[in-house]
Amino acid sequence: MRVGILGGGQLGCMLAESLLTLGAQVRFFEPSPLAPALARYAGTTCAPFNDTTALSAFFSACDVVTYESENVPLEPLRALGELGQKLRPGLDVLRISQDRAEEKTFFTKNRLPCARTLILDKIGDLPAAASDMGFPFVLKTARGGYDGKGQWKVRGLAELGGLAPLRQGAPGRFVIEELVDLRAEVSVIVGRKPTAQGDAVSLFPVFENHHHDHILDLTQIPAHLSERQRALLCALAIKTARDLDLEGLLTIEFFLSDRPGAGTSVESDGLHIRINELAPRPHNSGHLTRKACTISQFDQLARLLVGLPPATPHLHEGGWAMAQLLGKVWGSRKHLDLSTLVDHPAVVEVMDYGKTEVRPARKMGHLIAMGANADEAVDFALRARHQLTGSLLS
Amino acid sequence: MRVGILGGGQLGCMLAESLLTLGAQVRFFEPSPLAPALARYAGTTCAPFNDTTALSAFFSACDVVTYESENVPLEPLRALGELGQKLRPGLDVLRISQDRAEEKTFFTKNRLPCARTLILDKIGDLPAAASDMGFPFVLKTARGGYDGKGQWKVRGLAELGGLAPLRQGAPGRFVIEELVDLRAEVSVIVGRKPTAQGDAVSLFPVFENHHHDHILDLTQIPAHLSERQRALLCALAIKTARDLDLEGLLTIEFFLSDRPGAGTSVESDGLHIRINELAPRPHNSGHLTRKACTISQFDQLARLLVGLPPATPHLHEGGWAMAQLLGKVWGSRKHLDLSTLVDHPAVVEVMDYGKTEVRPARKMGHLIAMGANADEAVDFALRARHQLTGSLLS
Repeated sequence: MRVGILGGGQLGCMLAESLLTLGAQVRFFEPSPLAPALARYAGTTCAPFNDTTALSAFFSACDVVTYESENVPLEPLRALGELGQKLRPGLDVLRISQDRAEEKTFFTKNRLPCARTLILDKIGDLPAAASDMGFPFVLKTARGGYDGKGQWKVRGLAELGGLAPLRQGAPGRFVIEELVDLRAEVSVIVGRKPTAQGDAVSLFPVFENHHHDHILDLTQIPAHLSERQRALLCALAIKTARDLDLEGLLTIEFFLSDRPGAGTSVESDGLHIRINELAPRPHNSGHLTRKACTISQFDQLARLLVGLPPATPHLHEGGWAMAQLLGKVWGSRKHLDLSTLVDHPAVVEVMDYGKTEVRPARKMGHLIAMGANADEAVDFALRARHQLTGSLLS
Repeated sequence: MRVGILGGGQLGCMLAESLLTLGAQVRFFEPSPLAPALARYAGTTCAPFNDTTALSAFFSACDVVTYESENVPLEPLRALGELGQKLRPGLDVLRISQDRAEEKTFFTKNRLPCARTLILDKIGDLPAAASDMGFPFVLKTARGGYDGKGQWKVRGLAELGGLAPLRQGAPGRFVIEELVDLRAEVSVIVGRKPTAQGDAVSLFPVFENHHHDHILDLTQIPAHLSERQRALLCALAIKTARDLDLEGLLTIEFFLSDRPGAGTSVESDGLHIRINELAPRPHNSGHLTRKACTISQFDQLARLLVGLPPATPHLHEGGWAMAQLLGKVWGSRKHLDLSTLVDHPAVVEVMDYGKTEVRPARKMGHLIAMGANADEAVDFALRARHQLTGSLLS
């Protein structure tokens, strides 16, 4: 099997490892000559995604193609016609997950619980929508936002007029969402292969995620959830995968709150569950699976891409935590000085993504720690990060 | 850190993964254009090892260089002079481990237990040595042998005259060893970093190995050993690493017998322990560490190559088994058809090494299974191999 990966960042590189293990041939398509995959892997195509000639040649040379980000442009892929059928997950899943307006429409249509949302075809519709929604709410660009980019919290009328996208008449669609009273965020990664006899589905343990400045900072397993809550989250994840007719891997991010709110939510043991957003790919919260599970999220996607049914991952004993390493603690160093981290059996992986350009909010690496339980693992991970970077934050 | 790897087979490729995780730059030097690393990784030098210009340029472009086989030729590396100091483990370790005569001399000098051995400077010395040793014995080429190649079992005087190397007057040194009454073979992998304050040493669990036609067929952990036997094996492994002044990773293969024999051996709980041979590199018996331990043998060597002390690997609960997949069951297929292996949570890795040329005794891949204990894991691994290849053998 010849497998193509659109995007040569850390997620693509980790996927390549798993694909090579299965004996697949791996090729990257990546616009930036500075991306980690280019220096590492043979035969990378370095071209912009809208170079349809290069993109078409790339798809022709692959049996199946996947992507490491849902922000890869849709139009050049659509323009491929029949060749675009090689994309996994498919074009429809990409279309829905890369646009918050499409995503919310999909949730509503399939009765999947989500925060109350209004779709703005243009930013000029904001004042009317705001008066319909009421304050506070969150304004989000429909496309291209991630890690808190393209999001503005609006607490009252006074803030409305000062909003940059409104003042500047920013193009494109927007959504506004009720501000959810958040107790916790969790994510579930599901692998699915549709078959003639129905489908084969497999789930990873639920990840409990802690954010800092809207960027994933820390993930732990097991999550602090009741068995009933866990089962409900898994059922929602499977329903979402089926409603999308997913072929591949999907990460579902959930908001958990103490109150039901104005949108739809499902209640379990006092927690109100809503889907926040979808990522049809391996996810940074899933890095833990590299060490905590017998099969990682990358192994799972690799299996699905070469046509195998998803495997059942087994969670190792104890607790596990992943701490992200961001550019702001990385500083001007090109690479992390690992010698500051003395041997601690709890720290089972320190990964340097090999990015040559350091930006404060950029994910530069991560570390994984294990413990007797999740809280102990979190403690070890935070201490290791402190030791490694001099900072307690990501 | 720029790390060079001499040899682009499966061991080199798995090491590359671990080095990339640590943010190191990886470059291969590999004579064969068909080796797996060439199709996978960027910037590989494809040249014979005796191309001193290419080898010297390769060493100049690296901060440290390692090798995936002790059969890499010594002379071109010696000829590099100061540049050759970048080799880890160093030239002396390579010299000793690639030559059985040197190895036995090293064992004897350091009072490490081994089978009685006589060194033949030329094959013509065989009849005299045979009468000194007595029958049965094993004749081995001093260099270049592996997987049973370059070995002849000699049961009596009648067989002596018919031996191919003797009839053909084969060049080079040979050794003859007493035939050891073998109950089991085990291996220990040790990582070591010498420091000013002494040294940092770390061990993996003892692997119990089962061979078929002289080729590693199955490895299991935990090994069937008493705590005392385990401790003794570990102590011998550490002593060997220290006697070699090892910087890097070393695999020590041990013979375990019920009887002491004519050479030296150490007794523990009824088992007589001897060192068989050394491999100063990751070992096929260590593949299990990829799934059974928090840190794999490749992670460990990667740490040592970038200058970190070895980490302490933690063994996950239960038992683990690795079954090798050889060319003879691979058949004419270029790649394994993994679809014959239905999802079984016990099978946690199936690896296709990506070799394009299939030879009967060639290691083409492996699989790893877990179980409640080692015996159950072995059972699962053998059944999975049967399902995958139609054969119960490797």
